Amino acid sequence: MLPEVLLKELTVKTDSKIVLLVIDGLGGLPHKGKTELEAAFKPNLDALAKEGICGLMDPVYPGITPGSGPGHLALFGYDPLKYQVKRGVIEALGLGVEVLPGEVVARGNFATLSEEGVVLDRRAGRIPSERNRELCEELNLRLGEVEGVRVRFFPGKEHRFVVKFSGQGLSDEVTDTDPQKEGYRPLDPQPLSEKAERMVVVLRAFLRMVHEVLRDKRPANGILLRGFSEIPCIPSLSELYKLTPLCIATYPMYKGLARLLGMEVVKGCESIGDVFEALKVNFAKGYDFFYLHIKATDSRGEDGDFEGKVKVIEEVDRFVPLLKGLSPEVIVVTGDHSTPALLKGHSWHPVPFLLRSPYERIDDVERFTERDCLRGGLGRFRAQEAMTLMLASALKLKKFGA
Amino acid sequence: MLPEVLLKELTVKTDSKIVLLVIDGLGGLPHKGKTELEAAFKPNLDALAKEGICGLMDPVYPGITPGSGPGHLALFGYDPLKYQVKRGVIEALGLGVEVLPGEVVARGNFATLSEEGVVLDRRAGRIPSERNRELCEELNLRLGEVEGVRVRFFPGKEHRFVVKFSGQGLSDEVTDTDPQKEGYRPLDPQPLSEKAERMVVVLRAFLRMVHEVLRDKRPANGILLRGFSEIPCIPSLSELYKLTPLCIATYPMYKGLARLLGMEVVKGCESIGDVFEALKVNFAKGYDFFYLHIKATDSRGEDGDFEGKVKVIEEVDRFVPLLKGLSPEVIVVTGDHSTPALLKGHSWHPVPFLLRSPYERIDDVERFTERDCLRGGLGRFRAQEAMTLMLASALKLKKFGA
Repeated sequence: MLPEVLLKELTVKTDSKIVLLVIDGLGGLPHKGKTELEAAFKPNLDALAKEGICGLMDPVYPGITPGSGPGHLALFGYDPLKYQVKRGVIEALGLGVEVLPGEVVARGNFATLSEEGVVLDRRAGRIPSERNRELCEELNLRLGEVEGVRVRFFPGKEHRFVVKFSGQGLSDEVTDTDPQKEGYRPLDPQPLSEKAERMVVVLRAFLRMVHEVLRDKRPANGILLRGFSEIPCIPSLSELYKLTPLCIATYPMYKGLARLLGMEVVKGCESIGDVFEALKVNFAKGYDFFYLHIKATDSRGEDGDFEGKVKVIEEVDRFVPLLKGLSPEVIVVTGDHSTPALLKGHSWHPVPFLLRSPYERIDDVERFTERDCLRGGLGRFRAQEAMTLMLASALKLKKFGA
Repeated sequence: MLPEVLLKELTVKTDSKIVLLVIDGLGGLPHKGKTELEAAFKPNLDALAKEGICGLMDPVYPGITPGSGPGHLALFGYDPLKYQVKRGVIEALGLGVEVLPGEVVARGNFATLSEEGVVLDRRAGRIPSERNRELCEELNLRLGEVEGVRVRFFPGKEHRFVVKFSGQGLSDEVTDTDPQKEGYRPLDPQPLSEKAERMVVVLRAFLRMVHEVLRDKRPANGILLRGFSEIPCIPSLSELYKLTPLCIATYPMYKGLARLLGMEVVKGCESIGDVFEALKVNFAKGYDFFYLHIKATDSRGEDGDFEGKVKVIEEVDRFVPLLKGLSPEVIVVTGDHSTPALLKGHSWHPVPFLLRSPYERIDDVERFTERDCLRGGLGRFRAQEAMTLMLASALKLKKFGA
């Protein structure tokens, strides 16, 4: 990425507005000769492509399949290799847990231990989520504080939870307690650096207390922790680009990521319609960067549901006139990565990218598809470069050098 | 950029000649559906595009609008983020002032001060350039030397000038004296590092003497200085690439930049015709790299004069047969950045690039325009990569590795 000091120097605060519509997992692979985007009826997105300039974007590096963290960080202009959001934090954000600087979170499983303390089932027979909630509630009630550190359990699905430690002198530089295999005892956490020594003392006391509470709760009579994480120190969009950003998303993880980057987050969006409605309501309120996130394309892709993904694209398309009607100076439509239904997961394929602004060279692209974007005026580029392009097109960047 | 040590190792001195024709601010934006290049009648440039290979070049980074300094440095293969020519030096070069290593230059304003020494008008009522010349002359006559340091004033337009300090132990690490606002006294220069302490002593004595001379010259009874700069230490084209380069330009700033990079500079070119005539005269003289600079495209772009820019392109086109007639092994036509008339200034848009050599893969491009270059065989690339391409096409680069 460009040096941060340079970005801070070149960006200027203006009234122009940028709307970045992220259709999660947008790119696809052909099924019966057509990708999801090619199969979808989406006259409004195609019209937008015709009015703008298109390209294909590599989220991280050609061949690299990004998780949602790196996919989004790159899109917001951060080097995804430099700024990494650790797994525990991503999991916490996904449960809607706010993580503050200095706090440590970890992913956890409820597990079944033998009387000798050996792991018999790493997932405690996949206990029902309801039971998980009860256990977390009891643990929160009975533990509260350990060695002056506040601990909180947040239930996830089945046997999964997140635990958060809040207090002085914590550190995420400790090893997992999850042996990753049955037939072994949970591992004793070890410090990975000197500054993690207190954390290990806290953790050992914490684990003793937890196992005391769970003693008679078989099959969930033990816990395994992994991925201790603190939030990374990431400069905000306002620091780097002088933006006043608003995030409009339905899923907790994307809202959490947005908060990490200093965005304000709209509350209470559930559906695609809600997302666009919230844009309409907030458009005139003094924000100059709107990050809209559509999750369902990625979910359908992950399910391998080609038709379902096509339908979501078609639904998004119906809201494009509303978006255009607000007349933001810059509209960008893209994804954070590809999620081809064929692969039932994220993939490394470059992502279609569309930018409309009064100050771009219109290209010949007339349809918003992978194939058409390949011939677009922006060519193939790294996702990290998208942010300076958006800022430039909104006339928010000064000249570099005399 | 490639490591300099590698460039030095790979380049070989040969008889082949490269002509780099820089049409300043070449790229544009559509007006009534056509960019300046698309609107221009330029059969010779189009023929050259047909005979060569084309592409689109990002001067610094996608979205970043370069000044002339970074635009040119990149084109000559230098990392524009690593090598930066400071504002004061650019200003000095623009006035045709030569700056040697160890010398310090600054931009200055004549200003009006009150009897108490407070700035009443930062621009001294924009005194006529003629008055500026008289004042500089008188200052040069009466000051000459300060604390063993030679000082010289060079008049610019209206109230603007450049002052140059030549002597031992100088430094540009001092703060501005310009308070940037009226109602304040000129600032006392402060050292930004230990090695600037002598410079501050010189400056204070210098300022006392200047204000003594100007005492009764109201409205120009004071000066304000900013942007103290030394020339950066940049390896020359001959050091890096073993080239014997010649610069043919009409504007002082580009000649100055070329001198910074160790180029010889042709004297006395005023018009586009002069530039090509000088190329003809000097072509057989043992140079192997000719940097031709056409300024008027950028000037017309800056003026917002679409038709004017089109006409300049058409004029340049008429000299292309002369250029081709000299049969250099490599001809490159490009710009240092885009200057769309629509934006009345430099812009971030990629720049059309055309390379003709007997050793390139001819592509299908038949017209030299932004849109056609997008489909060219060179694709989209960073300006910094242009130099190795030119050298390679002239068979001036050895194989890397065994």
